[in-house]
Amino acid sequence: MKTVGYAAHDSNANMVPYHFERRELRGNDVAIEILYSGVCHSDLHTVNGDWGPQPYPLVPGHEIVGVVTSVGSDVTKYKVGDQVAVGCMVDSCQECDQCHNHEEQYCRNGMTPTYGAPDRISGETTQGGYSKHIVVREEFVLSVPEGMDLSKSAPILCAGITTYSPLRTWGVKEGTRVGVIGLGGLGHMAVKLAVAMGAEVTVLSRSTKKEADAKALGAKGILASSDEAAMQAAANSFDLIIDTVPAKHDVNIYTPTLDVDGTLVIVGQIGPIEEPITWPLVGGRRRIAGSLIGGIEETQEVLNFCAEHNIYPECEMISMDQINSAFERMSKGDMAHRIVIDMASLEA
Amino acid sequence: MKTVGYAAHDSNANMVPYHFERRELRGNDVAIEILYSGVCHSDLHTVNGDWGPQPYPLVPGHEIVGVVTSVGSDVTKYKVGDQVAVGCMVDSCQECDQCHNHEEQYCRNGMTPTYGAPDRISGETTQGGYSKHIVVREEFVLSVPEGMDLSKSAPILCAGITTYSPLRTWGVKEGTRVGVIGLGGLGHMAVKLAVAMGAEVTVLSRSTKKEADAKALGAKGILASSDEAAMQAAANSFDLIIDTVPAKHDVNIYTPTLDVDGTLVIVGQIGPIEEPITWPLVGGRRRIAGSLIGGIEETQEVLNFCAEHNIYPECEMISMDQINSAFERMSKGDMAHRIVIDMASLEA
Repeated sequence: MKTVGYAAHDSNANMVPYHFERRELRGNDVAIEILYSGVCHSDLHTVNGDWGPQPYPLVPGHEIVGVVTSVGSDVTKYKVGDQVAVGCMVDSCQECDQCHNHEEQYCRNGMTPTYGAPDRISGETTQGGYSKHIVVREEFVLSVPEGMDLSKSAPILCAGITTYSPLRTWGVKEGTRVGVIGLGGLGHMAVKLAVAMGAEVTVLSRSTKKEADAKALGAKGILASSDEAAMQAAANSFDLIIDTVPAKHDVNIYTPTLDVDGTLVIVGQIGPIEEPITWPLVGGRRRIAGSLIGGIEETQEVLNFCAEHNIYPECEMISMDQINSAFERMSKGDMAHRIVIDMASLEA
Repeated sequence: MKTVGYAAHDSNANMVPYHFERRELRGNDVAIEILYSGVCHSDLHTVNGDWGPQPYPLVPGHEIVGVVTSVGSDVTKYKVGDQVAVGCMVDSCQECDQCHNHEEQYCRNGMTPTYGAPDRISGETTQGGYSKHIVVREEFVLSVPEGMDLSKSAPILCAGITTYSPLRTWGVKEGTRVGVIGLGGLGHMAVKLAVAMGAEVTVLSRSTKKEADAKALGAKGILASSDEAAMQAAANSFDLIIDTVPAKHDVNIYTPTLDVDGTLVIVGQIGPIEEPITWPLVGGRRRIAGSLIGGIEETQEVLNFCAEHNIYPECEMISMDQINSAFERMSKGDMAHRIVIDMASLEA
C-alpha cells in the first residue's frame, strides 16, 4: 500500500515529505488510516540520533489513532470502520514469560518499536505515525472506546500509558501521596491519571510559575524544587514520585521527599542521571526505579480508564508541515503539554 | 558505673584505652558485661570522621554480646545472668508510626545510635561496645538464644541484621535468585542467610579468586564482575542483589544482571555512587534501593534464625590492643570476614 509521511533523512535534519510503501496485509494485520498522531519528546531524541544511529529515512510517531480501512483474513478483533489506536510497540515474540504475562514491553526477545526497528518477519524498518496509513498485527492494535474524541486521544498511547503503568505498578489509590516532576506531556498526564485514582498529587517544578496550571489539572499545588526550605519541609511526604524529566538531572533533590519505602520512578530520561547520594535510600529504604510504557492489555486499560473518567491530554493541534518548528519549540521546552498532528493536513 | 574501653580522641587517630562512666541504671535499664564486640567497617568510617565530625573521645562498637549484670527496678524481660546482645541502636522515640511498626531504625524522630549520639534523656554521648560494660534500656536489648556460641555471635547484630532485613523485605524464599556483591562482613552473612532461606546465591566479586570460599559459605559460585562476557551472559539472572560495597562504586555493571522488576539493595555505601545509566532501570522496571540495619523485633528474629539454622559469622578473634592494626587491615580489605574483639583481653 502506497502512503506518505514525514521522515528524517539524517540526524539533526529537518523532517520532509516521504512517499513509501506499507506492507500488504498478512492474515493477522489491520490497516489503519491515521487521523491524529501525537508528538513525543522521544521522537525528537530518536530522529536526532541522540539514542544512537538510526535507519534513515525514518518516520517517527508512536501515539497513533485512526480508523480501520481493511483487515487480514484471520483478524477477529477488528472490522473496517472501527476506531483504533497504536502505541509504542507493533510486535513482540508472543512466546516468552513476559509476553504471556502481558508485559510485551519487557519481551525477552525484544519488542518491536513502532518505528526504526526491523519487522520480525520481513526485516524492513518499521515506520511510525507521522504518516497517512499504518499496518499493524491485530494483537498490537488497541480499541478506542466509543464516544472518545479521537482528536485528543493520541497522547494516551505513550504519555498516558507511560505514567499510568507505574501508578498501577506501585499501587496508587485513594489517598496515596504522589509527586510528579515536570508538567510536560508525561507529567500532565501523570497528574490527571493519579488524581482520577484518588491520589493527593503535588507537582514538583523549578518554580511555582505553573501553579494555576497544576491546580487546573487537579493537583493540590506546586512544590518548587529551587526553594530549599520548602523542599526540606517536604521531607518524607510522598509515597511515589513520577519523574518525567527527559534529560540528565539530579534526583538527590527529590529522594528525601519520599517517605520510608517510597519510590522515585524515572520515566523520562534514557541515559545517565547525576550521582545519587545513598543516604536517603539507605536511611529510609527508599528506591529509585524506572518504568517503560506498559503492556498491550494495560494500554487498553488506560484508554478505557480515560474514557470512563473523561480524561484527555491537553493537546495543541498542528498541521504536518509545522512539525519542524514544533520540534524546535519542544527542544526549548516552549510548548503546551502535548502537540498532536492532524494527519488530514497531509495530502495523500 | 566505672568502665574502660578503647576510644578515638580525634579523627584518624589511634584507638587508646579510655576510662569512663556508664550511667546509673534507670528503671528500664539493663547493665551488661560485654564479652565480645564485633568490628564493623562503619566503626572505622565513624572514628576516622569520614561521615562528619564526631564527639570525641568516642568508643565505637555496635555488635555487642554479653551477660546481664544488673537490671533496673522496672525491667521485666531480663534478669542477671541472661545472655544478651545490643546492636546499632540503643533508643528511639517509641511513639511514632515507624517505632510502632517495629522499624525503630527509621524512627521519625531519629533513633539513637549505639555510639556517638546524645542520649535522649541526659544528652551525654552514647559510647559503644569496645568496652567492658554497657547500660541500655531493655527495649533495645536482644536475647541470645540458649546454646548459641557467644564468641561467634556478635557480628549478627550488624552484619547479620543489615543483610537479613532486605532479604526479608524483598521476600527471598526457596528458589529466589540472589546476587551478593562483596564477601566481607556483610557479604558473607548475606550468603549464609540467603542460602538458609532456600535462595540460589551467587557471589559477585572482581575475580573468581574467592570461589572456594563462596562455595564453602553455600553459594553456587562466583560471577567475576571484571569478566565482561560472563556479566553479559548473566543478564536478567537475579531477582535481588545485595550490594555490600562500602565505597563509591559503579552499579551499572550490576543492574543489567537483575531480572525484570529486580532490585539492587545498597547496604554498604553511605555517600555517592557513580552516575547510574537509567536504561536498565527503565527497560526492565529494575530498582536501586537502600536498607538500614533492621528493627529490634527483626534483630531478635535474625538471632533466632541463626540459632535455628546454626549460622555463625566467620570470626577472627583479636585482643583489644590489636584494634589499631585490625583497622589498618580492614582499610586495606586485608582480612577474613569479620573481626571480633575478645573483651576479656581488656583489663578492667
